[in-house]
Amino acid sequence: MKTIGYAALSPSTPLAPFTFERRALRANDVAMEILYCGVCHSDLHTARNDWGWTQYPAVPGHEIVGRVTQIGADVTRFRVGDAVAVGCLVDSCQECDHCHQGEEQFCTNGRTDTYNAPDRITGENTYGGYAKHLVVREEFVLRVPDTLTLAHVAPLLCAGITTYSPLRTWNVGPGSRVGVIGLGGLGHMAVKLAAGLGADVTVMSRTNSKEADALSLGADRLLVSSDSAAMAAAQSHFDLIIDTVPVKHDVNPYMPLLKVDGTLVLVGQVGPLAEPTTVPLILGRRRIAGSLIGGIRETQEMLDFCAKKQILPDCEMIRMDQINEAFERMERADVRYRFVIDMASLPAPSAQ
Amino acid sequence: MKTIGYAALSPSTPLAPFTFERRALRANDVAMEILYCGVCHSDLHTARNDWGWTQYPAVPGHEIVGRVTQIGADVTRFRVGDAVAVGCLVDSCQECDHCHQGEEQFCTNGRTDTYNAPDRITGENTYGGYAKHLVVREEFVLRVPDTLTLAHVAPLLCAGITTYSPLRTWNVGPGSRVGVIGLGGLGHMAVKLAAGLGADVTVMSRTNSKEADALSLGADRLLVSSDSAAMAAAQSHFDLIIDTVPVKHDVNPYMPLLKVDGTLVLVGQVGPLAEPTTVPLILGRRRIAGSLIGGIRETQEMLDFCAKKQILPDCEMIRMDQINEAFERMERADVRYRFVIDMASLPAPSAQ
Repeated sequence: MKTIGYAALSPSTPLAPFTFERRALRANDVAMEILYCGVCHSDLHTARNDWGWTQYPAVPGHEIVGRVTQIGADVTRFRVGDAVAVGCLVDSCQECDHCHQGEEQFCTNGRTDTYNAPDRITGENTYGGYAKHLVVREEFVLRVPDTLTLAHVAPLLCAGITTYSPLRTWNVGPGSRVGVIGLGGLGHMAVKLAAGLGADVTVMSRTNSKEADALSLGADRLLVSSDSAAMAAAQSHFDLIIDTVPVKHDVNPYMPLLKVDGTLVLVGQVGPLAEPTTVPLILGRRRIAGSLIGGIRETQEMLDFCAKKQILPDCEMIRMDQINEAFERMERADVRYRFVIDMASLPAPSAQ
Repeated sequence: MKTIGYAALSPSTPLAPFTFERRALRANDVAMEILYCGVCHSDLHTARNDWGWTQYPAVPGHEIVGRVTQIGADVTRFRVGDAVAVGCLVDSCQECDHCHQGEEQFCTNGRTDTYNAPDRITGENTYGGYAKHLVVREEFVLRVPDTLTLAHVAPLLCAGITTYSPLRTWNVGPGSRVGVIGLGGLGHMAVKLAAGLGADVTVMSRTNSKEADALSLGADRLLVSSDSAAMAAAQSHFDLIIDTVPVKHDVNPYMPLLKVDGTLVLVGQVGPLAEPTTVPLILGRRRIAGSLIGGIRETQEMLDFCAKKQILPDCEMIRMDQINEAFERMERADVRYRFVIDMASLPAPSAQ
């Protein structure tokens, strides 16, 4: 199937229209027309080869929402017209313990990312959701509940599951005290989801300039991390802190805020952390952890939970041809809180 | 009660004989004659004021074994002549949630360390086990099972519980794979205790020079951390790694060796760690944690477990007047694996 998308052709050139083939349907494949695609920091990092492993052309996008247009002969769980979604994963071995436990992100034989990864069968580079169409095996297609507004669903597929999964791993619920560091795409979802799960939620920020925003997203308060008296008063308070800061930083000021056995979980920065001291770890049996998106079962659970609680990201809709500007604004943190591309803005390949 | 011990009078002078008073028995106190006291790195750090909070004179020692000589009016659990032990803690508030859970080391109102801490009632500096006698409230006195050889028990009170507690916190048992970094006082106990709990145990060391020792202590193998092929082959292998390294170091080579949800727990270094990268944390939901000794209930459990399994530290017995030489040898890691002071070598105060 011929389709059109936007691709990076090199680290230094802007994304540009790119016509390519989606694979012919395998028996277990679902074909979808993409209606919306969220814009994630990983898209930018991949387009610019910040992590050093980008294959060009690179078609980013792993927050994908659309409707089924065709199904393979063996597909049983979807019908043409269904509202569906695809997140960061499009395949895994389906045979290892992690896959059996529904945690395909940890597949022992290697998960297949939605873009910039070799297809498990052909070895071809996967192309993501900055495109009109997508073909994905049934097991990696999510069902979008009818009661969710389709245009706002897309960021749940990465920002949503990336923050929902640690909330579930560390058993957050009513009575839990959750801190959120950073109020961007990930952080604003962490606040909404933790509040939705019944937790008491504190946003941590260097100044109080985001207090009104934090409260309107569902936080109970904002803790100003530069206020040493407030930080001292918050010691041993939190069960879980979700740290969404996407650059190298110092977690030492936050560790004493955790209770005994509390965890600070990193979901933003992929790379070095500033030197931690072991003192708060030892004195409170505290932990520093990481978390990686979530499995397919948990992602479906998250979508169903969001439908039940009517939790949706705050989105700014853009046209496909605004993507390069959106990347620049995202680098300045000038977005509240996630860009979503309306794929109706992308002409069908036949019109090219 | 007048007693004699060895004290540091300043950071730069050797420990020397020191005569002092133990408090008159309170109703809930147990008095004991100290028979043996283990020598812990913390003793050295305190004597030399390495952590900046030493009060002089300082009488170190928190691996204490002896026999009851007198009991207060309200003491019910001990009789004169009982073999008893005291570890790192001599008091706590007994009222907070952590105390109620038997985790006095995390007492919300502040645990009282066996030495170099203010007594909760008088505020006087506590003096540790490098002495002939000790007076401690009943709740912090451990019972030494009859089947344990008294002369070898002492190091269980700090090195033992410090490694046993994380093994229990992280549910180590048959089928668990445990790694141990560092084969000193803590590390050799970690090996014995993990093996005793039924785990498969791997010692990690820069060279294979300690292989025979590791195997004789109960390890199943030694992994040479400078052997990149061996390290690669051990990826995603361990449930828990106990890191006993007592200086600033780099945990990055070890993190990929953990399974998904695996934990590296720091029990040796109190202070900075080299910059960790978040990559193995995120890609495997792995954790870096700390652990602090253990509570009284768990310490008693550990002593009973060691009696049942006949697990004892490897000790080198010294006289009290060899303590300064022992400190020097300990700094060179020249001890297999723990010095224990035989208090019979210290003249009674009446003989001074």
